[in-house]
Amino acid sequence: VNRSSLGPGAEFDLIRRFLHRAPGGAGDHVLVGPGDDAAVLRDGGITLSSDVSVEGVHFRRDWLAPEEIGYRAAAAALSDLAAMAARPVGLLVSLAVAPEDAAEVAARVMAGVTELAEGFEVALLGGDLSRSPGPLVIDVTVVGRTSSPVLRVGAEPGDEVWVTGELGAAGAAVAALLRGETPRADAMARFARPTPRVAEAIWLAEQGIPRAMLDLSDGLLGDASHLSAASGVALVLEAASVPVHGAVSPGSAEERVSLAASAGEDYELCFCAAPGAGDRVGAELLRRFGVPMTRVGVVEQGAGVHWRHAGGGRSPPVLGGYQHFGGSR
Amino acid sequence: VNRSSLGPGAEFDLIRRFLHRAPGGAGDHVLVGPGDDAAVLRDGGITLSSDVSVEGVHFRRDWLAPEEIGYRAAAAALSDLAAMAARPVGLLVSLAVAPEDAAEVAARVMAGVTELAEGFEVALLGGDLSRSPGPLVIDVTVVGRTSSPVLRVGAEPGDEVWVTGELGAAGAAVAALLRGETPRADAMARFARPTPRVAEAIWLAEQGIPRAMLDLSDGLLGDASHLSAASGVALVLEAASVPVHGAVSPGSAEERVSLAASAGEDYELCFCAAPGAGDRVGAELLRRFGVPMTRVGVVEQGAGVHWRHAGGGRSPPVLGGYQHFGGSR
Repeated sequence: VNRSSLGPGAEFDLIRRFLHRAPGGAGDHVLVGPGDDAAVLRDGGITLSSDVSVEGVHFRRDWLAPEEIGYRAAAAALSDLAAMAARPVGLLVSLAVAPEDAAEVAARVMAGVTELAEGFEVALLGGDLSRSPGPLVIDVTVVGRTSSPVLRVGAEPGDEVWVTGELGAAGAAVAALLRGETPRADAMARFARPTPRVAEAIWLAEQGIPRAMLDLSDGLLGDASHLSAASGVALVLEAASVPVHGAVSPGSAEERVSLAASAGEDYELCFCAAPGAGDRVGAELLRRFGVPMTRVGVVEQGAGVHWRHAGGGRSPPVLGGYQHFGGSR
Repeated sequence: VNRSSLGPGAEFDLIRRFLHRAPGGAGDHVLVGPGDDAAVLRDGGITLSSDVSVEGVHFRRDWLAPEEIGYRAAAAALSDLAAMAARPVGLLVSLAVAPEDAAEVAARVMAGVTELAEGFEVALLGGDLSRSPGPLVIDVTVVGRTSSPVLRVGAEPGDEVWVTGELGAAGAAVAALLRGETPRADAMARFARPTPRVAEAIWLAEQGIPRAMLDLSDGLLGDASHLSAASGVALVLEAASVPVHGAVSPGSAEERVSLAASAGEDYELCFCAAPGAGDRVGAELLRRFGVPMTRVGVVEQGAGVHWRHAGGGRSPPVLGGYQHFGGSR
């Protein structure tokens, strides 16, 4: 995640501060610098992103098996390549683990990384390993290629806003775990072994559909605010259209939509497309990949993310995007 | 550091175990897979390496300013590109910091990274940021290019073993800090702001000098054992030839050589060259870069790393390479 295009929030302020100082962002070698889901080098379209996961912040050891920690970290990193419509080539894994975990846990974390890498035909290129005096930390850097990256910039007033899949399953699993309950199996699977939409993104880009795109790691509301900020437009979302995963329950319809749109780590795609363009490919996406896509709003002139209610009224959403600093968890 | 060619040691056993399971290491896209200082992709010679630094393992906050932590982490990562004679293009930084450090410390760490990046004309491509419930963790991934990487494989019996610079300054600084003393300023500078030998490595490779090379991150003895293992040869080092930094003191000559050859994090180059080849370029290297190079031994048939003493006797060294697990610190 090159989190920096950037809606509001303390984490984003912090990243913005150092990336604005970044040298070489517009250098000869760099086509896309910091500020999108991944960076892209000019020559060869090499696409790069890093994603760090920290025990006690992104996962808990009593929630996930070591294999799941590795799988999930690698899937989250690969999702940033999907967000650019880039084809993954390889990954590097840096792991910091407690000495008593070195023998077993590290090997099991790497087994999970390997399973994801094999499933997506991605090479494990290397990495690093250190003792940690504290939490388990895993940082995954992914490298891919694209000749025409899809950026966060590019949404235009009049465009439609689409998401793939159904939202909120990972969030529902986390909510259940926080209550001390056992999550529904399908929700837990989405949390523990998310599926980055790599092939879906490449196919959509080949059809020329997404004008601007990112992956949903911070939640629909949080990520929509990044897309809005990068493209310089307003995103107006229709609450009734949000595809809420069946595991998001109980609660009123409004509460379920709110959770589904606020919860992070779905790793679905969110993109803006010309009016009518999405309708032309939705059925084929479902047929090819078994993944639905749903129109959830429209792009307008202005700024920020807004809810449009069934009656026609409009309200700014309560920001629910995942934030590591000063955020909701 | 893709630490895996690999001499003995618990850390290396662990990395070896998962890299042997690595998918795609010899895949279509991969020219050099895990097991060298960096991986190299076939198309375009894209060279990649990650290097993680953990508070309490690689550095202490009472020893280094945040800027130095960032500079040093980025320099160490860049040194892995130097080890391949690759030209650096960019870097990604993942940072996990305590919430109370988010505002100031993270920005200062990134200022150090930026200073290194600007000095080496390397673009900051992106990264990630997380809260850490424990130590500060910084993982730097570097990307470069090379059309003809210099590997750890390739040393042949009869070759000479060379190192750049002088060894042991960083180790002397750490030793002083551990004793509660103030290190000599020149030693502290080498520890806090090491200089990766990027231009030196590229120039040496352009002259066709190194047949096999790595950078000295784990100490001469530790890294020589990796080179020995990768090339399937014995390295016989002459204790009297080791260029010991002036900050390594006091002690007998033998003690000083032992410390200089065991201490890690010098980030000098160690390479094997055909007999006489090094002598032809040493003066020019010194003239161009202000960096000496010294012949410290020879390559023989066999395995492992050995000391040859002044009298002609030979003994296996006590392994002193830096090890994160079960090691000397």
